[in-house]
Amino acid sequence: MYTDHSTTEIDTLLAKSEAAFYQYKNLSLKERAHFMRSIAAEIEALGEELITAAQKETHLSEKRLIAERKRTIFQLNSYADAAEQGNWLEARIDLGDADKTPSKPDLRKMLVPLGPVVVFGASNFPFAYSTAGGDTACAFAAGCPVIVKAHPAHVETSTLVARAISKAAEQCNMPEGIFTHIYGADFKVGEYLVKHEAVKAVGFTGSYSGGRALFDLAAQRKAPIPVFAEMGSVNPVFLLPDKLQQDHQWLADKMAASITQDMGQFCTNPGLMIAVKGGALDQYVKQLLVKLHEVTPSKMLHKGIARNYINNMQTAITQRHVDVLYQSDNKLGEEDGMVTIAKVPGKYFLTNVQLRQEVFGPYSLLVECSDEAEMLKIAQHLEGQLTTTLMATVNDINNNSGLVNVLQEKCGRFIMNSVPTGVEVALAMQHGGPFPACTDSRFTAVGADGIKRFARPVSFQNWDNEFLPDELKNENPLNIWRTVNNQPTQAAVGKV
Amino acid sequence: MYTDHSTTEIDTLLAKSEAAFYQYKNLSLKERAHFMRSIAAEIEALGEELITAAQKETHLSEKRLIAERKRTIFQLNSYADAAEQGNWLEARIDLGDADKTPSKPDLRKMLVPLGPVVVFGASNFPFAYSTAGGDTACAFAAGCPVIVKAHPAHVETSTLVARAISKAAEQCNMPEGIFTHIYGADFKVGEYLVKHEAVKAVGFTGSYSGGRALFDLAAQRKAPIPVFAEMGSVNPVFLLPDKLQQDHQWLADKMAASITQDMGQFCTNPGLMIAVKGGALDQYVKQLLVKLHEVTPSKMLHKGIARNYINNMQTAITQRHVDVLYQSDNKLGEEDGMVTIAKVPGKYFLTNVQLRQEVFGPYSLLVECSDEAEMLKIAQHLEGQLTTTLMATVNDINNNSGLVNVLQEKCGRFIMNSVPTGVEVALAMQHGGPFPACTDSRFTAVGADGIKRFARPVSFQNWDNEFLPDELKNENPLNIWRTVNNQPTQAAVGKV
Repeated sequence: MYTDHSTTEIDTLLAKSEAAFYQYKNLSLKERAHFMRSIAAEIEALGEELITAAQKETHLSEKRLIAERKRTIFQLNSYADAAEQGNWLEARIDLGDADKTPSKPDLRKMLVPLGPVVVFGASNFPFAYSTAGGDTACAFAAGCPVIVKAHPAHVETSTLVARAISKAAEQCNMPEGIFTHIYGADFKVGEYLVKHEAVKAVGFTGSYSGGRALFDLAAQRKAPIPVFAEMGSVNPVFLLPDKLQQDHQWLADKMAASITQDMGQFCTNPGLMIAVKGGALDQYVKQLLVKLHEVTPSKMLHKGIARNYINNMQTAITQRHVDVLYQSDNKLGEEDGMVTIAKVPGKYFLTNVQLRQEVFGPYSLLVECSDEAEMLKIAQHLEGQLTTTLMATVNDINNNSGLVNVLQEKCGRFIMNSVPTGVEVALAMQHGGPFPACTDSRFTAVGADGIKRFARPVSFQNWDNEFLPDELKNENPLNIWRTVNNQPTQAAVGKV
Repeated sequence: MYTDHSTTEIDTLLAKSEAAFYQYKNLSLKERAHFMRSIAAEIEALGEELITAAQKETHLSEKRLIAERKRTIFQLNSYADAAEQGNWLEARIDLGDADKTPSKPDLRKMLVPLGPVVVFGASNFPFAYSTAGGDTACAFAAGCPVIVKAHPAHVETSTLVARAISKAAEQCNMPEGIFTHIYGADFKVGEYLVKHEAVKAVGFTGSYSGGRALFDLAAQRKAPIPVFAEMGSVNPVFLLPDKLQQDHQWLADKMAASITQDMGQFCTNPGLMIAVKGGALDQYVKQLLVKLHEVTPSKMLHKGIARNYINNMQTAITQRHVDVLYQSDNKLGEEDGMVTIAKVPGKYFLTNVQLRQEVFGPYSLLVECSDEAEMLKIAQHLEGQLTTTLMATVNDINNNSGLVNVLQEKCGRFIMNSVPTGVEVALAMQHGGPFPACTDSRFTAVGADGIKRFARPVSFQNWDNEFLPDELKNENPLNIWRTVNNQPTQAAVGKV
């Protein structure tokens, strides 16, 4: 039904993306924002049809999908607001001084779009990190045309959303080529896109192997392009002694819900719990298992994900010194996720790198440490993570400053007494982290700062005011915040 | 005299860099700034000895070196100011809301340092883009320890500056390992550094081949790291018809000086001039040659650079349809640069990619176009540049909006009626540009925004105020600008 695009077709389409770029980049922030809000409205207008299609393709619940659609619409609207507000432009003006020796030139800088962006969405967020998801919204906000490769696991959903985007583009008189929807079940289609000369950046959400492959292709180009790949992580949760003692029931409630929510199919799923052995930990485990027993498993996203989950989980739990503490019954056949909790002593975790691999699904490994020194050692050996979490009292924090110092280096988001699942769409959100959580820890996939992945600064030197972009004109017609002679201000130049 | 460091020695030194990182990153902005200002003072205190050493190693004039030292000191001091002012931290606070469903968490984000940074300096800026140059200053400002590989062409100068940095580090009680000076005439030393697990980012200024090699090594690591390589460019200058007609004498004066300043050994040297043929252009060329005759050539930086220059220049001028318009006599032997101006018709330039290569030295190629349409075509075919320049009247700009639209996509700095040489150290400066001018167009090598190359955001979710970094505490004790609930402000939280 959905035939892969041929390379010839892609060439023709990308020539249009390139042409569209030279028009779209010159549209005002207001026009970009209006386009984004129109996309949001068109997605909403798809109504029940969209939810039904996504339910069929992903096994996600109607409730979850309605919430995710709301999030997707919120992203489009809030990044539109941010695009218009203009803080992301990092507008800077350093006024010239002809009397200096040598004379100081007038310099004005702002972010401009990179060019056409290819987006690869995630299977677990068919709306919010797919066709009109965070990456697409950020690229449009930055001023870039977007090329989406339809996710093979929800191609019908993707087609519906693509239609909504195209409808909005038409209504807003966007240039032809502003948005392109490519079918490619074959990996070669994605490869061709990433290597294409017209493409200037890539946004990806998915597995480590997929993200790494695209990163390598982009780096090997004659002219390399940036790839922001968010590749998930194990999201370690450190349960400190005093907190365990005081709040084991609360912790068990929170963690059981976080591990099993939507069958653990989140890149922020807590796949690792680290604690010092003892009575408080035993208490916590007992209560955790009680809570897990109460969870009714549902089907995973699709067969491939379920198969991978079972394989990876089996590999993990059959490692030496790993004990299974809990596993739910398989009642749903081959798409059943089987909630699983396992345990390993700290010293064996330290020597077995296999146990540090993400197991995407409702799985979490408890690492039982002999003491706090071993817990610190484990922190030091962690790879980059989207999140690290400390469950800790004031006493715990004061007693473990070394641990706090190390954990900050391992993550993009450092959480205190809360669970890692649930990624708020907000400017202060960081969704990224040191490799292998993502390919460039300096950028975020969530929040309006994600726009900056697809933009670069240009300095205008010695330009007449009339020819400058509105964003940099003396009179500040857009009323944006700018840094003039090193001071943030909304004032017009000359009236600082 | 300067033996290459062995891999074992490097391992030991980099273990110290790593340890230093865990201390240095927690020092206050004020302490970092104080350290940077102390380095500046120690460089100044080296006095005549430093200038003498650099003169001997680079053939740069005393006057130029004194100016460059001043620039280096200015960079250290002004980036110290910027570090302390804290705008670069991009501090964002989104206050939580427990009453929302689901409840909104408290999120606070700021930039934190990446970790130890390796710096490879440039031969043409023995102070400002070498041992204590822009990259080193930015890394220290960001909170990163620095490892400098001494440039083999000015290793004595580098050693003196390294001594000044170490002295400042001692005075300021910096952790051991905050700064490391590595000798490596062999490329393998650089390779070993870039591949080393302790290294988290690379700054490089130099040739395309060198920068690309380091970029590839870093991308191929198990955990890739960002490489900011500034690799120079040809810096095309478009001379538009009306401007040529009105200002040919002024243009000739400016361009002759820009092409020959310090024997053209700048990454912003104008290596390409593009204009439509005709009487005004002939006038300009005549006056340009007169001005070039008045220039007294000096020796190039070192024999290797001179040899490369002669080779590359010879390759360029022996291409078919290329005519030499001017060449200075060789009076200084094998280190003489020989100022050279050549000319090629636009249609041959378009078909010969060899002519787009940078010729590092006092060389510029005039591309004579048959009309403005050909000029636009040339602009479209340009690779990424540090700068593009328009010499244009208001009429010219109005008549060439297509050209302006294209040229902006080709550069990091877009100059109007001024020359590309002379890179102001200012926040609004962009020194970078699309590949191959640099490896990541989203960052700059000059100006305080360069600090952000070596830093990444971390979000703190749900933290008690007392444990947050000072930068993010409610009371805003450092009085920095922060974005609170999407609004820039210096106010304390609760008093917005």
